[in-house]
Amino acid sequence: MKTRLFSPGPVTVPDKALLKMAEPIFHHRTPEYEALFAEVSGKLKKLFMTEGDVYITASSGSGAMEAVVVNTLSPGDKAIAVRGGKFGERWYQICVAYGIETIPVDVEWGYAVKPQEIKKALDQNPVVKAVFTTQSETSTGIITDLKAIGEVMKDYDAALVTDSVSGLGVHEMRTDDWGIDFVVSGSQKSIMLPPGLGFIAVNPKAWPYIERSTLPKFYWDLKKYKKSLAQNQNPFTPPVSLIVGLNVTLDMILGEGLENLWKRTAKMASAMRAAAGAIGLDLFPKDYSNALTTIALPETLDGSALVKALKKNGIFPAGGQAHLKGKIIRIAHIGYMDEYDVLTAVAGLERSLKEVGHSFAPGAGLKAAQEVLIS
Amino acid sequence: MKTRLFSPGPVTVPDKALLKMAEPIFHHRTPEYEALFAEVSGKLKKLFMTEGDVYITASSGSGAMEAVVVNTLSPGDKAIAVRGGKFGERWYQICVAYGIETIPVDVEWGYAVKPQEIKKALDQNPVVKAVFTTQSETSTGIITDLKAIGEVMKDYDAALVTDSVSGLGVHEMRTDDWGIDFVVSGSQKSIMLPPGLGFIAVNPKAWPYIERSTLPKFYWDLKKYKKSLAQNQNPFTPPVSLIVGLNVTLDMILGEGLENLWKRTAKMASAMRAAAGAIGLDLFPKDYSNALTTIALPETLDGSALVKALKKNGIFPAGGQAHLKGKIIRIAHIGYMDEYDVLTAVAGLERSLKEVGHSFAPGAGLKAAQEVLIS
Repeated sequence: MKTRLFSPGPVTVPDKALLKMAEPIFHHRTPEYEALFAEVSGKLKKLFMTEGDVYITASSGSGAMEAVVVNTLSPGDKAIAVRGGKFGERWYQICVAYGIETIPVDVEWGYAVKPQEIKKALDQNPVVKAVFTTQSETSTGIITDLKAIGEVMKDYDAALVTDSVSGLGVHEMRTDDWGIDFVVSGSQKSIMLPPGLGFIAVNPKAWPYIERSTLPKFYWDLKKYKKSLAQNQNPFTPPVSLIVGLNVTLDMILGEGLENLWKRTAKMASAMRAAAGAIGLDLFPKDYSNALTTIALPETLDGSALVKALKKNGIFPAGGQAHLKGKIIRIAHIGYMDEYDVLTAVAGLERSLKEVGHSFAPGAGLKAAQEVLIS
Repeated sequence: MKTRLFSPGPVTVPDKALLKMAEPIFHHRTPEYEALFAEVSGKLKKLFMTEGDVYITASSGSGAMEAVVVNTLSPGDKAIAVRGGKFGERWYQICVAYGIETIPVDVEWGYAVKPQEIKKALDQNPVVKAVFTTQSETSTGIITDLKAIGEVMKDYDAALVTDSVSGLGVHEMRTDDWGIDFVVSGSQKSIMLPPGLGFIAVNPKAWPYIERSTLPKFYWDLKKYKKSLAQNQNPFTPPVSLIVGLNVTLDMILGEGLENLWKRTAKMASAMRAAAGAIGLDLFPKDYSNALTTIALPETLDGSALVKALKKNGIFPAGGQAHLKGKIIRIAHIGYMDEYDVLTAVAGLERSLKEVGHSFAPGAGLKAAQEVLIS
């Protein structure tokens, strides 16, 4: 069987992006590159729904996360980090690595933080300079209501930062309208490229945080990125081939239209959730992201055997991380994926479940999914 | 005319690496990736001539430079940075960005630092923890004798760090034998890939520097990279497609053999220098690197007009940076390049010089180059 990627990143890269990136490389200090970079930068603003700049780092998404930390905070500052999964914990770890006193808002894995919990933490810690959140927590499959958090935070001075690595291009993310100060993402999720680019969207009102911040930085110094961007350039040698691919995939995303993409992905995720229910499986998250469906495996099912069977059957899923290892499987709906791909994932899940001894009516999942997709 | 890259990075990426990278992407948390990464890591040790680890960062070379700074130093430490070009200055700037008291050893652009100058600076500042150097300074085209510096530094406790971004795969670089503690490089020079990977070779004896260092770090934390490497993994999502390409280009480099590659590049650089002389042009550097030939333009020649003519004639060179803008041109001999390519560059230089009004005997450069190449 062909192997199909259903992991929540890296996701399948469209052939036309792969082939464009395979064209001969060219130099980045040229009018040709600058025209490309100007085009790409304009399209990124549309994707992040901001009038501000979107900076591109040569790094993974975690590098872009660190960039935001060191550009918003100064020694002695306090911050809040929402910890409800592996990536929320990462915000906390980065802040602590820089000596920032960081107040954790701990949320049980599988649940989203409530805006009131953030309000409470801010009221208890009025000198907090930044609140770090995760829109779509890839480790658990939950979605956080950033619009509501933005609403709550309008009354506070702290910067609102969110990791939208797996949220962007899946769920609504209106950087400016929702009052989010910094939105971070990466190239290997809905942007459909190989890993290697980080993105940082900066709300126009958020620039003063960067001006004031004194944590040490060189490679991540966003002032350098701003200065370069004004000349359609990067402060350091950019991954030219990924920028070339980016122009292709951004056209695909914006060509479909963000609202259409959100709706279509919501339908695909809904179909997968219906299929899981129809074959007798529970969902792990209570507040589920459309980026991925996280299925809680019954104790009677051997999680690693199921993952193994899925891979053998050509469906590459993700298992659980940390204490969820062996207890969940995750199937993504991110990126270069359509309705037939969801049905393929359901078919592969049924095939694999049968092999590991789960009992259900073959085709029940497919039927339930198709009902959602075409009704 | 076809455009041929003669800039000192990015360099031409071999077709077989481009096409390999255009194959469908796969997930990095898999045995398939781990086998690839183990292979690549073993080959990198050969390239850097070290028994130690070679870490790969998702970043430009500057990111890898920052990684070394934050993994060798602690607040309150002193360092020495050799400044004889743009990249030497970068070491200084990174150290200063992290609050390190940094003693510059200033060298006139075009000259290499003498080992005695480093010895003198170390004697005057006995508490210095690290010395930052540049093997091949891309901005000026000079080569520094790292073997001799390694010899001098055997009597001192300070870490010896070198930027071999344009030196590696061009000039001899024996990390362990020469006692270099940290060697930094990037993917877009002799490694012949698109930009996007940084490399940090760590001499086995240098690990204690990392253990002791307390500058803040998260993304650059080499302890994380060491732990992951033991499992043939990366601490953060790696640029999978570049790692795939890396396996192809490392095979090309090691297949030719490092000593053969150094010798061949030396001959190509020597041919280009002979050509420059034969058409009445001076070389800028006094201690020239074989990575690139830097030609000092006579005042009668308009540097930017020459660069423009070269580009029109399909030869993409680099001009000068900072105060050398318009005063030099740089033609690289790095990477996917052979003897005929050097002759092509000479031919294009002659063609362009004629167009901008420099007088010389057409073919004189080609003749001089060919004499070097086949005698």
